[in-house]
Amino acid sequence: MFKETFQRYLTMIDETLTQLPWDKNSLYESMHYSLIGGGKRIRPVLALASAEAVGGNPRNILRAAVALELIHTYSLIHDDLPAMDNDDYRRGRLSNHKVFGEAQAILAGDALLTYAFELLADSELGQPERQLRIIREVAVAAGKDGMVGGQVADVAAEGKSLTLNEIEEIHKAKTGALLTVSARLGGILAGGTEEQIGALTEYAQALGLAFQIKDDILDIVGDSETLGKPTGSDLRQGKSTYVSLLGLEGAGQQLHAQTLKALSALKPFAERAIFLNELAHYIEERKH
Amino acid sequence: MFKETFQRYLTMIDETLTQLPWDKNSLYESMHYSLIGGGKRIRPVLALASAEAVGGNPRNILRAAVALELIHTYSLIHDDLPAMDNDDYRRGRLSNHKVFGEAQAILAGDALLTYAFELLADSELGQPERQLRIIREVAVAAGKDGMVGGQVADVAAEGKSLTLNEIEEIHKAKTGALLTVSARLGGILAGGTEEQIGALTEYAQALGLAFQIKDDILDIVGDSETLGKPTGSDLRQGKSTYVSLLGLEGAGQQLHAQTLKALSALKPFAERAIFLNELAHYIEERKH
Repeated sequence: MFKETFQRYLTMIDETLTQLPWDKNSLYESMHYSLIGGGKRIRPVLALASAEAVGGNPRNILRAAVALELIHTYSLIHDDLPAMDNDDYRRGRLSNHKVFGEAQAILAGDALLTYAFELLADSELGQPERQLRIIREVAVAAGKDGMVGGQVADVAAEGKSLTLNEIEEIHKAKTGALLTVSARLGGILAGGTEEQIGALTEYAQALGLAFQIKDDILDIVGDSETLGKPTGSDLRQGKSTYVSLLGLEGAGQQLHAQTLKALSALKPFAERAIFLNELAHYIEERKH
Repeated sequence: MFKETFQRYLTMIDETLTQLPWDKNSLYESMHYSLIGGGKRIRPVLALASAEAVGGNPRNILRAAVALELIHTYSLIHDDLPAMDNDDYRRGRLSNHKVFGEAQAILAGDALLTYAFELLADSELGQPERQLRIIREVAVAAGKDGMVGGQVADVAAEGKSLTLNEIEEIHKAKTGALLTVSARLGGILAGGTEEQIGALTEYAQALGLAFQIKDDILDIVGDSETLGKPTGSDLRQGKSTYVSLLGLEGAGQQLHAQTLKALSALKPFAERAIFLNELAHYIEERKH
C-alpha cells in the first residue's frame, strides 16, 4: 500500500510538473533540467499526504504542492554554485551551472523561486484567504529566517565545531522549515482544523530532523552509487554532524526517537494517516 | 508641488523600509546594505501615486509598494555578480558581493525576493482577492517571462547587433514589466476600476520605455559623477541601444514620443494624476 500510494503521488506530481507551460528557450530548459532531474519529491508528497490526512482531495492542491518542489530545486541550484558549495554533481547528473553556466544557473534559480509564488497564488485554487496564509508561511520558511538564513549559518559554520543544539538550529532553518510548511500547506489548503494543522506541524518537524540525522548517517555508512553522491564528504570537510557528535549508535538512537515522535503526532488522524506513518518508517530506513 | 509630493512618497517608503524587522545578523546586514543604498525608488513611488490617482490612500499599501523595491534591489545584486555583469560599483558604492562576498550576495538576493512575497501577502492589507491577483502579476512580471527572462535575453544578446524591435522586447521584459506592475499594484489594491487600471498600464508601459531610452542617452551625454556610474559603458561593450540605432537626435525624439504617450494615457484621471504627469516630464528631463 505504501509504495502504491507513493507512486500515485509521484505520478500526480510529475504530471503537474510536465504540464506546466515550458516554452522552448534556454531559461526554461535550465529550469526544467534541474526540476525533472529526479529527487524524492518529499515536499510535495508531504503536502498531498497531509491534505488526505485531513480528508481533502490531493488533486485540488497539486499546483501549490509542486511550488514547494520548485523552491527546493532553486535552493539546490544556488547551493551548488562555485561561490557556495561548488558541487559539480547533483543526484548523479551534472549540476545546473556545469551545463548552463553560472549566470544562467543563478537566473534559473531566481525564476524557479518566482514561479513558485505564481503557482501558490493560482486563481484555480479558489481559496484566497488560505492561499495568502500559505504564501506568507512559505515565504517565511524559505527566506531570511528559514531556508536562506539556515544556508548562511551553514556557510558561516564551516570549519567550526558546533554543539548539538547549534546543529539542530541550522537544520531547522535550512531544511526543517520548508518540510514543515509542506505538511501545513496540505492541511491548510484542504481545510484541516487548527488542531489537525498543529499535529501535522509536530509530525513534520520530527520527520525533518529524522531526515537530516539519516543524511548524516548515510554520509558515513551509505553506498555512494545508491546515494548518487560521494560519501564521507562531511568527514572530509570537518563538518559537525549528528554522527561526529553522537557517534553512529547515538545518532541512530536520535533518529529512532525523532521517528517515534513523528509517529505519535499522527494519533489524532487514526487510519487516515497510514501513509504518513509509513513515510516516517521509510525515512528512518531509507538507503538514499 | 511635484518635489513635495515626491518627497512625501520617499519619506513614507524609507520609513517603511527602515521599520521592517531588521535583526542584527550578517544576512540582514547585506540585504539592508543594498536596499538602503539610495536609488530613485521609482517602483514604489509609481505604486503610491497610482493608488492616489484612483482615489486611494497610499499609506494603506505601503508594505506592498516597498516589496517592489525589494525585488528591484535583489535583481541589481544578482546582475552585479561576477558571473553576470561583474560590476564592482552600484549607485556610487561598492556592489553587494564586493562587501559581503559572492555567496552571501546570492543569498541576500534570494532572501529579498522571498521577503517581497511575504510583504505582498501581508495580512494587514486585508484584501485577499486583490492581493492574490497582485502576487500573480508581480510573479509574472519578475519571473521567467518578465525580468529574469529579459536578463537572460540581455546576456544572450551581448556582442550581437539587435534591431529596434529586439531592443524593445528585451526592455519590456527586463525593466518594463516590473514598472508596469508597480502602477497596476497601486491601482488594483486601492480599488481602481478596470478602465483605470488599463489607463495606468498604458501610462507605465510608455514611461518604462521612456526611462530606458533616457538611460541610453545618459550613457552618452551624462555626467559620470551625477550618475554615480561610468558613462560610455554601452559603447565600450558594443551594446545595441536606442542611441546606437537611432542616433542621439532620433533617440531624443523617441523619448519625447513615449513621454507624450504616457501623458495621454492619464487623461481620464484629470487633476488626480498631476504627480504622474509631472513624473513623466521628470523622467524625460532627468540628469541621473
